[in-house]
Amino acid sequence: FLLAVEKDRRKSLYAVQTERQEQARRSVLISCPARTNEKKFLKYLSRHGDIKNYFFYESYGVYAVVEFANQESVASLLEGTDVPSISHESMVPFKSRLLSLKNLGSVDSPKQQLGKQCQSQTTPPINELIQRLSKEESIDQQVTSLTEAYQLTEENSRLRFLVCSLLSDIAAAYFPESIIKPFGSSVNGFGKLGCDLDMFLDLDGITGKRANMPQSDLSLEYQMKRANSERAVTQSILSVIGECVDQFGPGCVGVQKILNARCPLVRFAHQPSGFQCDLTANNRVAMKSTELLYLYGELDPRVRCLVFTVRCWARAHGITSSIPGAWITNFSLTIMVLFFLQKRSPPIIPTLNHLRDLAGPADQSVIEGNDCTFVSDFSKIQLQNNTETLEQLLREFFDFYATFAFSKMSINIRKGKEQNKPEVAMLHIQNPFETSLNVSKNVNASQLERFVALCQESSWLFQQSETNTPRGGKGGNTSTPWGLAAILLPSQVSGVKSRKR
Amino acid sequence: FLLAVEKDRRKSLYAVQTERQEQARRSVLISCPARTNEKKFLKYLSRHGDIKNYFFYESYGVYAVVEFANQESVASLLEGTDVPSISHESMVPFKSRLLSLKNLGSVDSPKQQLGKQCQSQTTPPINELIQRLSKEESIDQQVTSLTEAYQLTEENSRLRFLVCSLLSDIAAAYFPESIIKPFGSSVNGFGKLGCDLDMFLDLDGITGKRANMPQSDLSLEYQMKRANSERAVTQSILSVIGECVDQFGPGCVGVQKILNARCPLVRFAHQPSGFQCDLTANNRVAMKSTELLYLYGELDPRVRCLVFTVRCWARAHGITSSIPGAWITNFSLTIMVLFFLQKRSPPIIPTLNHLRDLAGPADQSVIEGNDCTFVSDFSKIQLQNNTETLEQLLREFFDFYATFAFSKMSINIRKGKEQNKPEVAMLHIQNPFETSLNVSKNVNASQLERFVALCQESSWLFQQSETNTPRGGKGGNTSTPWGLAAILLPSQVSGVKSRKR
Ligand SMILES: Nc1nc2c(ncn2[C@@H]2O[C@H](COP(=O)(O)OP(=O)(O)OP(=O)(O)O)[C@@H](O)[C@H]2O)c(=O)[nH]1
Ligand SMILES: Nc1nc2c(ncn2[C@@H]2O[C@H](COP(=O)(O)OP(=O)(O)OP(=O)(O)O)[C@@H](O)[C@H]2O)c(=O)[nH]1
Ligand SMILES: [Mg+2]
Ligand SMILES: [Mg+2]
Repeated sequence: FLLAVEKDRRKSLYAVQTERQEQARRSVLISCPARTNEKKFLKYLSRHGDIKNYFFYESYGVYAVVEFANQESVASLLEGTDVPSISHESMVPFKSRLLSLKNLGSVDSPKQQLGKQCQSQTTPPINELIQRLSKEESIDQQVTSLTEAYQLTEENSRLRFLVCSLLSDIAAAYFPESIIKPFGSSVNGFGKLGCDLDMFLDLDGITGKRANMPQSDLSLEYQMKRANSERAVTQSILSVIGECVDQFGPGCVGVQKILNARCPLVRFAHQPSGFQCDLTANNRVAMKSTELLYLYGELDPRVRCLVFTVRCWARAHGITSSIPGAWITNFSLTIMVLFFLQKRSPPIIPTLNHLRDLAGPADQSVIEGNDCTFVSDFSKIQLQNNTETLEQLLREFFDFYATFAFSKMSINIRKGKEQNKPEVAMLHIQNPFETSLNVSKNVNASQLERFVALCQESSWLFQQSETNTPRGGKGGNTSTPWGLAAILLPSQVSGVKSRKR
Repeated sequence: FLLAVEKDRRKSLYAVQTERQEQARRSVLISCPARTNEKKFLKYLSRHGDIKNYFFYESYGVYAVVEFANQESVASLLEGTDVPSISHESMVPFKSRLLSLKNLGSVDSPKQQLGKQCQSQTTPPINELIQRLSKEESIDQQVTSLTEAYQLTEENSRLRFLVCSLLSDIAAAYFPESIIKPFGSSVNGFGKLGCDLDMFLDLDGITGKRANMPQSDLSLEYQMKRANSERAVTQSILSVIGECVDQFGPGCVGVQKILNARCPLVRFAHQPSGFQCDLTANNRVAMKSTELLYLYGELDPRVRCLVFTVRCWARAHGITSSIPGAWITNFSLTIMVLFFLQKRSPPIIPTLNHLRDLAGPADQSVIEGNDCTFVSDFSKIQLQNNTETLEQLLREFFDFYATFAFSKMSINIRKGKEQNKPEVAMLHIQNPFETSLNVSKNVNASQLERFVALCQESSWLFQQSETNTPRGGKGGNTSTPWGLAAILLPSQVSGVKSRKR
């Protein structure tokens, strides 16, 4: 088994994004009848050019993602595509790269039909995961197995970029030089199957005057609508795109324009992919955080494994939630893991200040007054020789936060050292780039207490020999949960009972 | 003086529209500093290609409409256009063909500046018009003079198509095969300077499958958002375009989405042109009415003259208004004039049923079950030899409606004969195409009474010798209003005092 990211290993996130975006532009998304004959389907599509890659998946029906070798094939395919002509039905005649396959021919024999090839686009249910982990032979293997089950697959990653690309087409209708890029866990290496798709509209490409004309006293400018602030511009743009997604976007449902949030966004569900989508605009600091997390994840394979494990553990106990509230976010949790790894001796990952010091001239970046500079060239980063196992690290993580002085200290990955809290907040985690902000200022006392209590419980469980010993049987049908599987079981600690599973 | 339409005489409205649309696509709208030097300006623009036509006008500042000989010149011009870079101001980076000229050079001497060339885009105030008419030597000349002062100029007509074209760009962002076309008085030949700009989004061009591929069992369709009705689709589309015009459209202000009206529309003011705009969608019957009115107006020059005169007279006395209400609309009034002209003996214009009978196969048109067929080839229409003068016709018009049996009869241009009223309504004017509808069902008793009383008054005034006799002096500064000028003066009839001037 090859981890999806290992192929791209040591590529900068920017390079990965560029490649995936280009791939997505050459791709189409096709809803297929379940009885589709794969061979016929491919033959039919190949009329428009060579198919470079394709796969099927299921999400309210079977879909295919088809990547052509050349962009022109997509244009040719769309040229040959019908407008639906269902009588008694009205539809918005907006054309996109989301298509439906119609099969007018005879039904194929079951053997030729799709179904088996369909890869799952979601994580296994927690009970199934616990069963699976119980059969592993070491905690290290359990952590790796969890990571493998949870991480985004190559296909899921392609699908995410394709959905961005479809949405980009909508934005490009008005802003031809704009592009919509994924950020957050869809691309930072820590995303699990089924995580939301965070996107931002990048308008930086919009500039004028490329023609090289002789000088003149006169010049022309586009007349543009003025707004009171950049924020108002963002709100305007998201309002129009939100309206368009709502009214025209095939498969886009539950569109909400949340324009008065600190970071204005449009939220919707994209049914054909099953993704919950958040679209923001000009969110450049968030893109930098994403790059930073990606870089940390690529530095040492233990980083991603530990983040996945801690995120899964937190979710299993209801410490994190998919709805916003006073609880710890995945982003905060990830920073806590990174901080913990910086505190090992020797440290497994360097501090952000160290990464900033290694930065070259091309890495310089100041966004809205915030220094977002850090090195992008992996080869400049020298790691120290820490050989701790995943098992050791996981135990130590729980110990570390079971006893951390949350009441006085702030978590700071810039310095890799806890600092005195600059302000009153239950949990203080310095925002890596907007350093005056606290990433976890939403967290209240009881949520932090639950987190600490669960760290203590898990730490305690790991010290018990019955938890520690592999008790699975490779052949057996059921296995008693042990190791990582055991700490994912509902908590026994009174008062920290899982709110939701 | 050459009437603007005379150049296009005997062209079908469709041909006129096509030509004007094409012209508009090669044009740009440029806001100019008042001190712009015309020669320099033209020289600067000619770098991008030959200028076929241009003019300046004033509307909240000086603007130029510039038509290039080739479409590529527009692209080249836009390539060389800057994005404004005013510090401390945020703007929506939406690029359109509405530009601003910046003059970095020295101020030119007053002689070289613009101003005189600026043509007015509005009608003269009523008092000025009365003065002007009073100096004419016959009522026929007065009617012609009024028509000349009121009708759309070549420039105003170009500007209307350019505004449509700018708006078309917005719609084409999502619906590349769509087009926005003007209808109503902007193109039916009866528009006066300053009338609103009625537009509709024509989506009929949207079809699929143009590629000629070998047959297969399989076929592809665009996945499109379904709606409950055509109306819901129209509402969706207008909602998005309205949002876009509101948020992005430079110079577009006061945007209202009136989506629950019988005919959903987006209303806004386009400041650079000064036009009040109404955008509807898929309004094909209204386009047919427009074509019909255009055809009638082209058949005999007296038609347009009489319609302009009656509309102006009605407006002067507050019988019509720019705001909707229980009063007679310009559209109803126009049909009343057409009906009157059908009732002359011999008739000046044929009935709609006659025009339908002359229609060829290409003229067949049924829209939503309504027969909208009528001949488009002018040469097939034989007119009868009626030689009445404009003066006679105007008098007779007032007589005709001063004594019309409104209480029993319906006005019907399809048959050219009054019919028994099919329903209770103060004023019944059959909709020419949707024949079960009454175009003037909004009109209440008091509005109809005012119309009839004013017809009686004007008819009476025309019988008085002091009204009838030219009393102007070509040389004099002031002239006593007579003839047409006299009937535009505020009414003396008690109870029909003009509500508004
Ligand atoms: N500066 C800052 N950035 C945040 C914060 N929350 C989220 N972000 C950024 O926005 C991205 C997306 O946010 P989320 O969708 O909540 O988190 P995620 O990392 O995608 O993780 P999941 O969606 O929970 O899998 C994160 O990866 C961060 O880059 C915050 O509180 N402060
Ligand atoms: N069938 C029908 N069509 C109408 C009605 N009112 C307006 N229209 C159509 O819509 C067009 C535009 O309407 P208006 O803007 O009110 O009228 P107009 O002819 O443009 O005249 P102006 O007052 O100069 O704007 C008309 O020319 C008709 O084609 C109506 O009551 N019934
Ligand atoms: Mg996310
Ligand atoms: Mg109108």
